[in-house]
This record gives sequence, structure tokens and C-alpha cells, in this order.
Amino acid sequence: MEVRIPKRTLAEGLSLLERIIPSRSSNPILTYLPIELSEQSLILRGTNGEVDLEVKLPAETQGSGRVLVPAQTFFQIVRSAPGELVELVLREGERLELRSGAFSTQLSTTNPDGYPELLFALGDGGRIVAARLAQAITRVRYAASTEEYRAIFRGVQLEMSPQGLRAVASDGYRLARYDLPMELSTRKLVVPAKSADEIVRVFKDKEEEVVFAVREGSLTLGSDSLRMSVKLMEGEFPDYERVIPQGFVMEALLKAEALRESLRRVAVLSDRNNHRVNLLFSRESLTIDAEGDYGRGREELPLEATGEPQLMVAYNAQYLIDALGPIEGTVRVRLSGPTSPTLLQAVEDEGYLAVVVPLRV
Amino acid sequence: MEVRIPKRTLAEGLSLLERIIPSRSSNPILTYLPIELSEQSLILRGTNGEVDLEVKLPAETQGSGRVLVPAQTFFQIVRSAPGELVELVLREGERLELRSGAFSTQLSTTNPDGYPELLFALGDGGRIVAARLAQAITRVRYAASTEEYRAIFRGVQLEMSPQGLRAVASDGYRLARYDLPMELSTRKLVVPAKSADEIVRVFKDKEEEVVFAVREGSLTLGSDSLRMSVKLMEGEFPDYERVIPQGFVMEALLKAEALRESLRRVAVLSDRNNHRVNLLFSRESLTIDAEGDYGRGREELPLEATGEPQLMVAYNAQYLIDALGPIEGTVRVRLSGPTSPTLLQAVEDEGYLAVVVPLRV
Repeated sequence: MEVRIPKRTLAEGLSLLERIIPSRSSNPILTYLPIELSEQSLILRGTNGEVDLEVKLPAETQGSGRVLVPAQTFFQIVRSAPGELVELVLREGERLELRSGAFSTQLSTTNPDGYPELLFALGDGGRIVAARLAQAITRVRYAASTEEYRAIFRGVQLEMSPQGLRAVASDGYRLARYDLPMELSTRKLVVPAKSADEIVRVFKDKEEEVVFAVREGSLTLGSDSLRMSVKLMEGEFPDYERVIPQGFVMEALLKAEALRESLRRVAVLSDRNNHRVNLLFSRESLTIDAEGDYGRGREELPLEATGEPQLMVAYNAQYLIDALGPIEGTVRVRLSGPTSPTLLQAVEDEGYLAVVVPLRV
Repeated sequence: MEVRIPKRTLAEGLSLLERIIPSRSSNPILTYLPIELSEQSLILRGTNGEVDLEVKLPAETQGSGRVLVPAQTFFQIVRSAPGELVELVLREGERLELRSGAFSTQLSTTNPDGYPELLFALGDGGRIVAARLAQAITRVRYAASTEEYRAIFRGVQLEMSPQGLRAVASDGYRLARYDLPMELSTRKLVVPAKSADEIVRVFKDKEEEVVFAVREGSLTLGSDSLRMSVKLMEGEFPDYERVIPQGFVMEALLKAEALRESLRRVAVLSDRNNHRVNLLFSRESLTIDAEGDYGRGREELPLEATGEPQLMVAYNAQYLIDALGPIEGTVRVRLSGPTSPTLLQAVEDEGYLAVVVPLRV
């Protein structure tokens, strides 16, 4: 088998696999990169046991075949290849030769038969532009739990329905939800947060459509050039809708970025344990203050408010900063009382909603 | 005491101290930042026990005084201050108030009497443009040892003489030397490599002159706005001149960057222990190859050579890559044989010289 491929194409393909293929593994064959040649394309694969990925690259090919090479070494070699083209040549049972400019290398190979078969589900469970799926996950990912307790919250729930795709994450103290209107068949899945990060990393810049397919506890996302399969978590989120407050006593509009920056500054002085900041909402201004071992900080921001003349609520500053993260422009803060959950919405992006539970006084 | 200072000026001054002041210490007072006000200047200090630094910033002041504030908290607050100006106000025995834009903070302070006195030597042991001193150290720093064995090699030796300033570092297997012509009184000092890094970090962009002064085992570098004192190592390097070869059997000229890149590529295949690469010098080309567990790599580079028609020498690739680091443009490689030290010189910068000992065949 022989292949000629632009270095840039190959390097971009490998960069998608680089974080998925482990550099060490109790099953050492997983540290190898399977390279497969079919007509006019080079197919690269990798798995970390949770996420399987297949990348198909257009290339000039001769013959076909399959070989395993040490992945980390191959990544390094391609990254530093001096030429604009990379040529790979494999003669039966020999080393893989890689040539680029004045540089050449003979890489030891391993029998590909021992490599586990990666199973990508087929079927059409709906289509979505890859980058939009990544965007929906990114908006809510921060709220996923890192605690062992209530393990299901360590995932991101994807809810498909004829109304659209909804992504949800929560750790019990906060919740983030993002809605993308589109038509899908009804289904709920929970993707482990780390695998959700891989989906974002691989698909965030891809404007092509991916097809959803679910089989045997795995979600496959497939496009012309990429197929990714992630193991799903068992179960689904408990009914989170009931923590989303419905009645409000006060509502305020603020610039999201100014609020975020201000919270960051004042939080420097907050106590190290719960990052407590006190927010005093009044009709024309918000006063943020915090006090900890090293002193006290205070800042005032302008706002527009309706409802009660004044309300004091305390939060974990980091939770508020995280919840404001996906909001550009204006945030609508809807308060249901000093100890009831607060709702944050992006005025310019109706799909996003966050709930933060205040700290007890 | 009261002071008004542009945020940028203050933040730049603090950034110099930020790495020196420890965030934790067995002597907790060292984690505080001493702030002193004198006429039209704000003086900030810090020490990690090895390196003392004093930064003098121009400022609008009223009154004088001295106070200790928690350093990490102060760094964070100033970095995130929203205004262009920062105002500090201290009333007798109270908290330090910091104001910037709509943000204000009351920082707890500590009695400054417990803070150790930083001793900066006076005297004129010669002057040098700060950035040039940093440059000389940077050129040789890589060759300093990291081994416990022969501790003196864990420093950078500075040799002052009427001929100039010479910086030298070695770990016994390689040596780097940099000469800056200038007139200084004769003296040899060894600066611990980590403190040498701090000298580089603080002075690398400073075009002002610093004055050398040595007293009681410390070197002080002083300019109008900065004073730094570093503890010196005891002793001096053994006679390293004798490892610098004098007779050569072959000499080659190559583009330093091309050689460095080529070594990086081929070294990916070298064995993990000694990074062995074989260099075959001939009259018109250099062939680099390496072989390890994962295969073999090879690359050919053009060169101009005189002397023997051909010579094969093996090196630790990393040592060669490091030695080429400070060389821009052309490198002159002077070979004294397959097992004798090799000399590398920068054709465009005569001050730099490196010696690399080949690996045994």
C-alpha cells in the first residue's frame, strides 16, 4: 500500500485523535494508531474505551491495507515533517516507511488483528449541524457535577423531541439548560461529561451535518469524514423542571460581562470555602460585597429593575460567574426570594437558561 | 499615607515580584507584600530567601509609611482593578483601602516590624546594560546541571575582568560560554541557576544600566528603579578551559535552525534513554540517523566542510539541540574526532561557544 497526503490534512486528522488515543494503557494495543487505506482515502481510528473516533481523509492511494503504528511517535513525526506532502509506503510484513522532504523514517508496525473492532451505529436518529451540537453542550457543560454522589449528574443530558434538542447539566446546586429548535424523534441520553468535552473538541468548528444513531448504550455521531461513538450513562436526570422557579418577586437587567468582571474582583476577598458574595439588588443599582480573612471588597453596578424595591441574596460567586459565562450582551436576573433559586437568562439568546441556588444566610 | 498610581505601572511592578514572593512559606510573613511610601514613589519589596527584589515606582503620594498586605490577594485585586488609576489610603492602624473605578476594598494589614530587612549592597563593581546581562545568562543557562553531584555546576558562573563579562555553565558533559566585551574589575561569582532565571526574568527587557555590587556572599544588581540581591554559591568552577578542544580534524558550516529542526525530527525515533543520534559528516552533506524501539529515522542536510573527507560522531540529540538554541544564522561545527569534544560556534555572534561531548560508540 502507498499513500500521498498533504501534511496539513494528515496533521489535522491526527490532532482529532491525539487526545483520544491514550499514551499509556493497561491494554497496550490501544496506544497504537490503526491506519487503513481504501480507495482515495486514508482512515485513522482511535479509542480510549469510552470514546471511539474514526477520521477519513482524502488522499492519493495505491492498493489497500491496514497497519498499526505506535501512535505518539507517529504524531510527533508527522507534526515535525519538513515537507508539504507526506508519503507512506508499506510493503507486505515490513516497516512503514514515511517520507517528507529530505526526511525519511522506517516505523515498526504491529499486527492489526489484535486491535478491537470499533462499532459505529448506523441509522438515522436525526441530523444536526456539528458545530451547533457542540455549542449546545458547551453552554451547559460547566454545571455538570464532579462529585461521586448522584453519578448521573456527572453527565450532560441530551433530550431530543419534535420541538428540538435540549442539553441540560446540573449538580444539584445549579442547573444549565440550552434549547435548539429543530425536529427530532423523542429520546433522552446522558453523555459522560468528559466524553461531552471530546464531542465539543472534535466537532466545534465543523459546519457539516452529523447523523445521530443510538445502539446498545452508545451514541454515534456520523458525518462524511468523521464518526464518533460515545458510551452513554445508564438512567436519566431526576425531574429537574421543578427546581426552575416560576414566580418572581424582582427582575433586573444588567450587562453580563460587567457583572462577571465585577464578581471576579469582589470574589478575591470572599472566604475561600464557599466564595460567598452578597448581592444587594435595588431599583437602580446592584451592590456586590464580600468579606474574608484578608479584608472586604465592594463594587456597585447600574441596573434596571422591576418588582420589590430591594432584595439581598448571597451566592457562591463562582456559580454566578459560571452561569454568566455563556451570556453575551444582557442578562435578565429573575429573583424568587433570598433563599429560593434565581433564574438567569440571556436576553439575546432565548435558548439559554441557568438556575443558581442562593447560599443560606 | 495616600497614593495615586496608574494601574498599569503598579501591575507591571507587581508582576516582577509575583514569582519571587512565595504563596506559601514556613515563615508566613514572607507571603506578605511590604508597601512603603516615600516622596513621589511607592516602593514594593519581596524575597524568597534566595533572591531579594525591590521595585520603586513613580507615584503621586501624600505622607509616608509602611504596611504589609497579603501579597497574592493584592496581586489579584490589582490585576482585576477596573479603573485606570489605583488609589491606596492607609489611616493609622487601619485597613488599607484600595479604590479603582466603582470598586473598593478594605484589605487587612499586618505590622511591618516582623518583616526581615532586605540588604542590598552598595558600591560600584562595574556597570552593564541590564538586558545584555540577561542575554549573556540566557545563552548559557541551558547547560547548567540539574544533578546533586558536583553542586557547583548547578550554578551559572559570571567572570568579570578588564576584558569583559563571561557567563559559563556546564554539567560535565557539555559547556556553554558567552563573552561580552567590556571593562570590569576581576572577580568570579557563581549564581544558582534558579536565581539566574530570576535575573533574566526581571531584567531581560530593561535597557537601563545596572551596577554590580558584591558583599557577604550576595550579588546586588541596582538601577534607578530596581534593586535585586541574589545569594551566591560558594566556590567556583573547576578549570573548564581544558575541556575546550584546540585541535580539529574537520570543520563544517550549516544553517543552525535547519540542523536543529532536523535533529528534532530524527530524535523522535532515537532510544528514550540517551537520545542517541548518529551524525555522518562528509564534504557536502550531513546525514543524521537514529534508531530506537519504534523504528529508524534519517535525514540529510547540505553543508560546507573542510578537513577529513568523512567523520561519524554520535551525540545525545537533546544536547546538540540545546547547544544550537542560542545560534541564529550559521553554526560552525568543529570536530576533534569521534570521541573527543565537539565545538559549536555562532558565525554571526563570536561571543558564543558551546562544547558537546559525543556519546561513546
